[in-house]
Amino acid sequence: MKNIALSSVTALLLLSSFGCSEKGGDTKEETPKVSEPLMEKAKSAGLLPIPEKFVEKVGNELNDAKIELGKKLYFEPRISKSNLISCNTCHNLATGGVDGVSAAIGHGWTANPHHLNSPTVYNAVFADRQFWDGRDPDLEKQAQGPILAGPEMASTVEIVVDTIKSMPEYLIDFKNAFGSSEVTYEKATMAIGAFERTLVTPSRFDTYIQGDSTAMTGVEKEGLEIFIDKGCTSCHNGVALGGSMQLFPAIGEFKYANLGDFKGNAGGMVKTPTLRNILETAPYFHNGATFDISETVKIMGETQLGIKLSDDEVSKIVAFFGALEGEKPEVTYPVLPASTSTTPKPDVN
Amino acid sequence: MKNIALSSVTALLLLSSFGCSEKGGDTKEETPKVSEPLMEKAKSAGLLPIPEKFVEKVGNELNDAKIELGKKLYFEPRISKSNLISCNTCHNLATGGVDGVSAAIGHGWTANPHHLNSPTVYNAVFADRQFWDGRDPDLEKQAQGPILAGPEMASTVEIVVDTIKSMPEYLIDFKNAFGSSEVTYEKATMAIGAFERTLVTPSRFDTYIQGDSTAMTGVEKEGLEIFIDKGCTSCHNGVALGGSMQLFPAIGEFKYANLGDFKGNAGGMVKTPTLRNILETAPYFHNGATFDISETVKIMGETQLGIKLSDDEVSKIVAFFGALEGEKPEVTYPVLPASTSTTPKPDVN
Repeated sequence: MKNIALSSVTALLLLSSFGCSEKGGDTKEETPKVSEPLMEKAKSAGLLPIPEKFVEKVGNELNDAKIELGKKLYFEPRISKSNLISCNTCHNLATGGVDGVSAAIGHGWTANPHHLNSPTVYNAVFADRQFWDGRDPDLEKQAQGPILAGPEMASTVEIVVDTIKSMPEYLIDFKNAFGSSEVTYEKATMAIGAFERTLVTPSRFDTYIQGDSTAMTGVEKEGLEIFIDKGCTSCHNGVALGGSMQLFPAIGEFKYANLGDFKGNAGGMVKTPTLRNILETAPYFHNGATFDISETVKIMGETQLGIKLSDDEVSKIVAFFGALEGEKPEVTYPVLPASTSTTPKPDVN
Repeated sequence: MKNIALSSVTALLLLSSFGCSEKGGDTKEETPKVSEPLMEKAKSAGLLPIPEKFVEKVGNELNDAKIELGKKLYFEPRISKSNLISCNTCHNLATGGVDGVSAAIGHGWTANPHHLNSPTVYNAVFADRQFWDGRDPDLEKQAQGPILAGPEMASTVEIVVDTIKSMPEYLIDFKNAFGSSEVTYEKATMAIGAFERTLVTPSRFDTYIQGDSTAMTGVEKEGLEIFIDKGCTSCHNGVALGGSMQLFPAIGEFKYANLGDFKGNAGGMVKTPTLRNILETAPYFHNGATFDISETVKIMGETQLGIKLSDDEVSKIVAFFGALEGEKPEVTYPVLPASTSTTPKPDVN
């Protein structure tokens, strides 16, 4: 999984350490794969490995130039009003794809007005819908939101387009990515979406359910079994172990039931967060109410499943989460083009 | 100049495209070097190429592990009070090593109280002193300031040390870098300083004054000659073409003479900024008063040299600055260790 965002399109095939090792052409001796019933049980419960190829969007086919342009724009602070905030500010690739605070902080140090926690960008491609209230269908559309949102990057379409157009290097990048140097807001966010589609993190869990019984430890497997048996997989399923829309807990006075705008905008539905890299993405819940993963698991058992998990069960489930820690793609930090005399000036107010 | 921060210590020798190409072992035909009088004139005026080896500090010898640890800490937002601000926030390696705003913005969206502009971290190692008022002698000492400064990262020594100590991966990093896993604030900033010592950017100007007459264009050479003849080199000299302390313009009512705390703290002295990558580091002056490089050159002529530069002279000097655009070291964006239950929690207030 090294250098994906920079390597050739052939590297779109994820021929890495997880699964399908026959393809690897690795000469060293490998441990024979031993199948276990739990592998099938996990798949029957709807858990899926990360696919071998990046997931493309029809109409936004991936190519190296587009992914590289998307990376630059993902780290580009000058498309924000202040010139200080980029996508990476709240979805920091260094820290699990999140910012680690309970509510996102944006332009003018403004906290998200609904006290919503920044979801991770890693594996976000595997979610059915984007945003906590699921209002956008894909990453390309999602990227259009925070750039313009007042409490986030506080920009305008004009600032974004004028900023990009002011730097000749970006015009070449657009030409290489899209076949035309015409800069539009939609194309900029398509490139960002393309880059984000490469931010997938295969884990030992993937290796395991694809047939390598040695990839997970005994306690991790116990945790996986409890995770399935207790019904966690009724929401946390699919490739992301999450990512689909679920009914928001219909609870009145409950510290975790800060409804945000779910009730009005999304018919009471909220997106189930991915559990991949969950040990890196505290604090938890849509409102970042707690930093403690064990507490989080207990609360979910109570509020979503109506059961009381024992400390032993919780600790094994958390051990299983360790097997979901994924390998991050190697990202070379971009050197962005220099501003020119026509680049819009920052406005920090 | 690729992968310096990650490659072996032998790569501390900068065997790159600038100068001394005999060492390169390059098999392809090279243009014969032609010496020109301007090369000697530039050297006589005190202009120096970037040295072949990274500049080390006695007591903080460089090694790969220390440079890599320093890189992680340079990008580590969790050592700030909010967990949102890192060294890279104001000294962004993607945008010339600066933030592009006139006065640095830190914790709580607070502007620098003296309205001081963030200097670039690239080639900062070549400055005689650190900070605009020159109060610190080197990068290691400088790094101790902004982390604790209320309007910047707003942290405490305790937060920094406790945060680092809470993640086992960092203890291994400290052991590899310093021979002991003991974490201290001083060692953390020594590692950051070590990383910053690798952030040097050889340019066509370096290739030129080391004997390759083809490395600069005719107009760039004209600009260099004007730059010397007009006396710009009396302050902008050395490897950094800047970096030494000079008397602050003794002007009463003048829009660029926002004295900050220079008068009290530094005896009226201010550090001359480096001109390397100057086309990437707008806005200009210690208070970021203007974004226009031509205007900046004109004002400097008037206020510092007492001369009026013609538009033609200014445009040639600015052309010369193009030859100071340096190649940036390739930096792999770090994947930082996951927080643990003992990691101090963010405080955005």
